[in-house]
Amino acid sequence: MSRGTLLYAQSGGVTAVINATASAVIAEARAKKIKVLAARNGILGALREDLIDTSKESAASIAALAHTPGGAFGSCRYKLKSLEADRAKYERLLEVLRAHDVRWFLYNGGNDSADTALKVSQLAEEFGYPLTCVGVPKTIDNDLAVTDTCPGFGSAAKYTAVSVREAALDVAAMAETSTRVFIHEAMGRHAGWLAAAAGLAGENPDDAPQIILLPERAYDEAAFLAKVKQVVAKVGWCVVVASEGIHTADGRFVADAGGAADSFGHTQLGGVASYLAGRVKAELGYKVHWTLPDYLQRSARHVASKTDWEQAQAVGKAAVRFALEGRNSVMPVIVRTSDAPYRWKIEAAPLSKVANHEKKMPAGFIRKDGFGITGKARRYLQPLIRGEAPLPWGRDGLPKYVTLKNVAVAKKLPDWEG
Amino acid sequence: MSRGTLLYAQSGGVTAVINATASAVIAEARAKKIKVLAARNGILGALREDLIDTSKESAASIAALAHTPGGAFGSCRYKLKSLEADRAKYERLLEVLRAHDVRWFLYNGGNDSADTALKVSQLAEEFGYPLTCVGVPKTIDNDLAVTDTCPGFGSAAKYTAVSVREAALDVAAMAETSTRVFIHEAMGRHAGWLAAAAGLAGENPDDAPQIILLPERAYDEAAFLAKVKQVVAKVGWCVVVASEGIHTADGRFVADAGGAADSFGHTQLGGVASYLAGRVKAELGYKVHWTLPDYLQRSARHVASKTDWEQAQAVGKAAVRFALEGRNSVMPVIVRTSDAPYRWKIEAAPLSKVANHEKKMPAGFIRKDGFGITGKARRYLQPLIRGEAPLPWGRDGLPKYVTLKNVAVAKKLPDWEG
Repeated sequence: MSRGTLLYAQSGGVTAVINATASAVIAEARAKKIKVLAARNGILGALREDLIDTSKESAASIAALAHTPGGAFGSCRYKLKSLEADRAKYERLLEVLRAHDVRWFLYNGGNDSADTALKVSQLAEEFGYPLTCVGVPKTIDNDLAVTDTCPGFGSAAKYTAVSVREAALDVAAMAETSTRVFIHEAMGRHAGWLAAAAGLAGENPDDAPQIILLPERAYDEAAFLAKVKQVVAKVGWCVVVASEGIHTADGRFVADAGGAADSFGHTQLGGVASYLAGRVKAELGYKVHWTLPDYLQRSARHVASKTDWEQAQAVGKAAVRFALEGRNSVMPVIVRTSDAPYRWKIEAAPLSKVANHEKKMPAGFIRKDGFGITGKARRYLQPLIRGEAPLPWGRDGLPKYVTLKNVAVAKKLPDWEG
Repeated sequence: MSRGTLLYAQSGGVTAVINATASAVIAEARAKKIKVLAARNGILGALREDLIDTSKESAASIAALAHTPGGAFGSCRYKLKSLEADRAKYERLLEVLRAHDVRWFLYNGGNDSADTALKVSQLAEEFGYPLTCVGVPKTIDNDLAVTDTCPGFGSAAKYTAVSVREAALDVAAMAETSTRVFIHEAMGRHAGWLAAAAGLAGENPDDAPQIILLPERAYDEAAFLAKVKQVVAKVGWCVVVASEGIHTADGRFVADAGGAADSFGHTQLGGVASYLAGRVKAELGYKVHWTLPDYLQRSARHVASKTDWEQAQAVGKAAVRFALEGRNSVMPVIVRTSDAPYRWKIEAAPLSKVANHEKKMPAGFIRKDGFGITGKARRYLQPLIRGEAPLPWGRDGLPKYVTLKNVAVAKKLPDWEG
């Protein structure tokens, strides 16, 4: 007789290490003789009863998953509304879980996903269905409440700091006759964590990036241009890191790429660097180059942080443990116990404290002039990019990433008419 | 009595490994007891008599230079015209070389720089000044004639192939409810080498990148959109790599970022991916993400190719050897002697055969439909991204890059009134 199955799903934007979490979840459950199903494309796969039997994957594939970026089972941007508004969907979800004897549901995502996991657990309770729901943290935005940091962030932060340090050496070499100003656009809708991490690239006041623009501070064009001019006069060139989410004092995004909104109601951003480059060129006359790394910054497993990679696995392992212990509606969070030496542990936090919250950078992390980070921010951020996560390279000069078989489980229910 | 000095200068866009060449030049010259001066900001430093005494740098710094991206002595975009048109500048150059007893001039750059080195050598001969001029190849564009490949290209190629492979895993995970099409913009004004190298990211026809747009083929929007639609229908998503230099049949660049031209008369490009993204969204309705890596692709020493890194050092070492042997107006070039196993050697080529030529991709490297590379291209490109160039990482999670002291040599001449 079945002891029950564990359902794992990935949600929202993927990261360089979300599969490391998946790998840890599957390995830990296998060790406990628990069968793991994965929903294809996140919660949508659960609604559609489109489930993957991870027992068809070899141990080698599951191990390789730990160093493969992207989302191995597919992710989704699909937000369930309140229990009242989306009741039919929640009930369908429960029906699918029941049909496949799912006793443990692990949802790996950001704050929207924590909210979904919480609601599923509430409905299961209402129906008297024995289900343990555990949220598993993931987001390069680092904006989840309670947890000290979010798996995925440290690697994107390392990518950003390394890239900015490298590009700055390029700009410094070209500045005399060519590019004077370089602008790097970092992801981050409402919280500037990733842009802030670029600050780790420099150690002294004149080191790049000399200017960081954060969504936590209103964008003031005159002040920005004056600062660029001042840096170029002193250093000879200037590197700017701008968060995609910066906005003016009246709340308007500095660059809104067409205004299309995704199904979460988020506007699709991008184009801040391009906009700023145009302003610098027009007002100050400097030659400007700019970069929009976009998905490269969150999928760059080749430069992933070891700290981040270890934490991504730790939350996966802990999530399975919490689930099997029946700790319902919780999320394994990272608790920092010491900055130097850097020490951390995993604890369980109630999902209700994580769901739908957004953690912005504390005011004490932002320099008074608004264009950089403080020593306090540096002490917080520094350990997160430490170490290089192991990665096997092929003889062809490319990382050895795995593609899973993703064998579908036979359906037991009628098609979903979502 | 002085045995004469060797002057080294960097020119044009810098790369992840041009400093590896510089490191090899200095180390080789030191071994031969030859003093090396470096011109600050390329040929401009020579004209201004702004020279750096590299003997002030420690052996450790010169060794660290081998893994530091950017241009350690500064580069420039400054093209000298013909001997007739810029006679005064060439004569000033000779005056500076003579004042500092420069007997060997090594100019590290692309085809414009090869032309400058050639002209300096012609003028020296005319004046009876004993000078040996050697061009040293460098360009991520891979468009120099004669040499099998150009130092700098292999690392940018590896960055591009790795980034595209990683981003494709991200897109594949998101495609069901979000991004269907991802567009990566690669550098390359007139030759599509770098965009072509992205083709190494995939092995099978449906692997990313499913579409590569090269400047060697006219951009045909209808055919491009039809291909995107076809790939999305079959694979579920599509990754496009577009060379910044693609143009329509009538020769117009697909995206011209404002039309500003640099001092070489090159238009400043950038914006192809953004333009294509807009067209795909408008015509096909897919959600699109795009990336413009810009300087990140040429400064990413953290993911440099070992082949490229070794070749960058080999041309530096050979350049010193050729110079000391008095082989005037030559450039060390890479000669491939075997594809599998990959074997190469260095030979000397006359600068006249390199200067002002531009090597495009052979027709046999481009797939018949124009959207991908052939097996022949793959056999050529594959060895160039092989191996991971060694890189020391700091305990802070960042690569250990060196900043030289760059101590100026005392001036002996009146200021240049350029």
